[in-house]
Amino acid sequence: MKKSYLKNYAKLIVRQGINIQKGQNVVIVADLDQPEFISYLVEECYKCHARSVEVKWNYQPLTKLHYRYKSIEALTEVPKYVLEREEYYVKTNPAMIYILSADPDGLQGINHKKLAEVNQKLYPIMKPYRDARENKYQWCIAGVPSYGWAKKVFPHLTKKKAYESLWEAILKTSRALNDNPMKAWEEHNRNLKQKMDYLNSLQLVSLHYQNSLGTDFTVGLLDGVKWEAGSEIALGTNIVYNPNIPSEECFTSPNKNEMNGVVYSSKPLSYQNQLIEDFYLVFKDGKVVEVHAKKNEELLKQMISMDEGASRLGEVALVPFDSPINQSGILFYNTLYDENASCHLALGVGFTNLVDNYENYKLEELYDKGINNSMIHVDFMIGTKDLSIVGKTKNGKEITIFKDGNWAF
Amino acid sequence: MKKSYLKNYAKLIVRQGINIQKGQNVVIVADLDQPEFISYLVEECYKCHARSVEVKWNYQPLTKLHYRYKSIEALTEVPKYVLEREEYYVKTNPAMIYILSADPDGLQGINHKKLAEVNQKLYPIMKPYRDARENKYQWCIAGVPSYGWAKKVFPHLTKKKAYESLWEAILKTSRALNDNPMKAWEEHNRNLKQKMDYLNSLQLVSLHYQNSLGTDFTVGLLDGVKWEAGSEIALGTNIVYNPNIPSEECFTSPNKNEMNGVVYSSKPLSYQNQLIEDFYLVFKDGKVVEVHAKKNEELLKQMISMDEGASRLGEVALVPFDSPINQSGILFYNTLYDENASCHLALGVGFTNLVDNYENYKLEELYDKGINNSMIHVDFMIGTKDLSIVGKTKNGKEITIFKDGNWAF
Repeated sequence: MKKSYLKNYAKLIVRQGINIQKGQNVVIVADLDQPEFISYLVEECYKCHARSVEVKWNYQPLTKLHYRYKSIEALTEVPKYVLEREEYYVKTNPAMIYILSADPDGLQGINHKKLAEVNQKLYPIMKPYRDARENKYQWCIAGVPSYGWAKKVFPHLTKKKAYESLWEAILKTSRALNDNPMKAWEEHNRNLKQKMDYLNSLQLVSLHYQNSLGTDFTVGLLDGVKWEAGSEIALGTNIVYNPNIPSEECFTSPNKNEMNGVVYSSKPLSYQNQLIEDFYLVFKDGKVVEVHAKKNEELLKQMISMDEGASRLGEVALVPFDSPINQSGILFYNTLYDENASCHLALGVGFTNLVDNYENYKLEELYDKGINNSMIHVDFMIGTKDLSIVGKTKNGKEITIFKDGNWAF
Repeated sequence: MKKSYLKNYAKLIVRQGINIQKGQNVVIVADLDQPEFISYLVEECYKCHARSVEVKWNYQPLTKLHYRYKSIEALTEVPKYVLEREEYYVKTNPAMIYILSADPDGLQGINHKKLAEVNQKLYPIMKPYRDARENKYQWCIAGVPSYGWAKKVFPHLTKKKAYESLWEAILKTSRALNDNPMKAWEEHNRNLKQKMDYLNSLQLVSLHYQNSLGTDFTVGLLDGVKWEAGSEIALGTNIVYNPNIPSEECFTSPNKNEMNGVVYSSKPLSYQNQLIEDFYLVFKDGKVVEVHAKKNEELLKQMISMDEGASRLGEVALVPFDSPINQSGILFYNTLYDENASCHLALGVGFTNLVDNYENYKLEELYDKGINNSMIHVDFMIGTKDLSIVGKTKNGKEITIFKDGNWAF
């Protein structure tokens, strides 16, 4: 891929994504696949006068080895310095960039019971630090190709061709191949906000999903909880940032106690870098009561058992079937892209910052209002060509939101 | 390079290098050049029942960016968690593996005054933790190729060929291309120990170096300070480990107050990944009083000004001109290899564990005996085909140690 495009993409992530401010610290979390691109990000941060940029490197094969050989005791040891480091992040509030490139199926074969046990033990220890930063910092998730991921997306191409094709697909869906990606994103944000404003104006109390896969599902929405789209604002600041590049969705957090019916997945789900495929979930009174999957059913069951909130929804998101990402015809096997090609739901924690005047409440109070809480947040795709969504408004009116997979208005 | 050779090399580093023991932690410090090889090391550590293996990744281009853009204030900030982490290492005493692969000239252009200032500020803060672990843990330095380094060593080969050639050179000089590298190292250690024992039996009080480059230099040796070679033993344990792979040297720490004369470099020196070339140093009463270099003289001057001990020697090492590494005819531009192809000296801190019964003294007492102390330890090569070294013994006898660049006995 041409260097100039990559530098534009880095610029987009730093300026439109986290919108870094003079004197701020940045933490970049990345795999080892694209060190040169990461150096573009780092330099761009510094050019915007970041004070300090730290890169935390991950490497999937080492994750596999650690989970294979380390004891639960060693995997869940949290030395004092780790907590001190979290404390430091709470104090210095760095912006976060997450660069995804891992093979979506690369942790296949890992002991997922062990992984779950470790996550369950670590979660309560790390939660106070996560909560202390909740909503307060700019963050952005974006992707770059690895050879492993590229071959999964383009199995019939050579390694090199697949890799180049994935770069192109990523940059295109991220609007980074435009002459002026920054301007393209400003316009894109305006369009998304129009849809969002319309949804907010409807004062919906529920959505009813139906399609030919078998989905027949109703979800309750909360009074005083907004729809959101595109850019957001960090709590206590006026810094506008884009948490996802790309982003095509309008989303909200539903009432964690009001989900009923059956919902079918329409794309594979990469959870902890293992693929779960062809699954459906049955909900009753907000909780999953039945799951089936043709591939990795055990892992799916594990996932929804992580904690009480893992079997409830934290997010409902609307994306038209004719979204540019879906039109590309590419199945990315990566939620960042596939969720923006399809209507989706997320099991697990919801978005407390969607509650009106959320800044005046404690986190626990926001969860008490009906926003779900959990250690997980896992999106899965349910949009199809024939999906219909009918909304019910506060005053009992039925409004068609989606028809034949697309916006009905 | 064939996977089986690489796995053998990893095995050699883990079993013969750090000689990891069941239940120990390991920290591996590596650049991003050879993630797959690093995963072999990690797996080998776990197979030897290491408790936990942590990899700290470095990336030269980021180092360059940090030093270019960050303020001295930000570069020298030491958050509490960093000290807590050092404390954790003091407590858990992990074995350390350092894998070198950086371009020996890759930091050319960096602001070395800024780098020096940062190191000078950080050194006293980190020193107590370094001192607390001194001599107590197993460590091993070894190398793997990067494309940048390979092209420096083999400028006339294609990138790929250069890279393969450097792998071969590294494995060959490390005795890792043998059928049984472990056995080859046991034999090699025996041979080195024979030379070491002979040197120790001589009770030398000084060495006089001469060659046609212009070297005419005398260094005083300390009573009660041994020569060492090959494997060592971690303080307070009976764990035998090999700190350098490869290693061809017999070395000792000289009297920091007794160095006089002029000494010429015989190979380039990569200091902080910048090359210093064609230099000489003039010593008087243990201290450098004059330096000249055809390339990077300023950096050399900076180096010997880092602290009081930076202009005194901490190491004197003997390597025959016909050593296998020198016979390969390859100039590695990397001290780990080049120092084992040539007699060398090191400016900076000496080896306190060479003092008889060092375990009975405090570190400061060992330095008071005449072992040099400094924040740096930089080896530089002085061996030539015509180098002669004449030793003087305790009872005044002169003994030829080196003749025509090689052992005289």
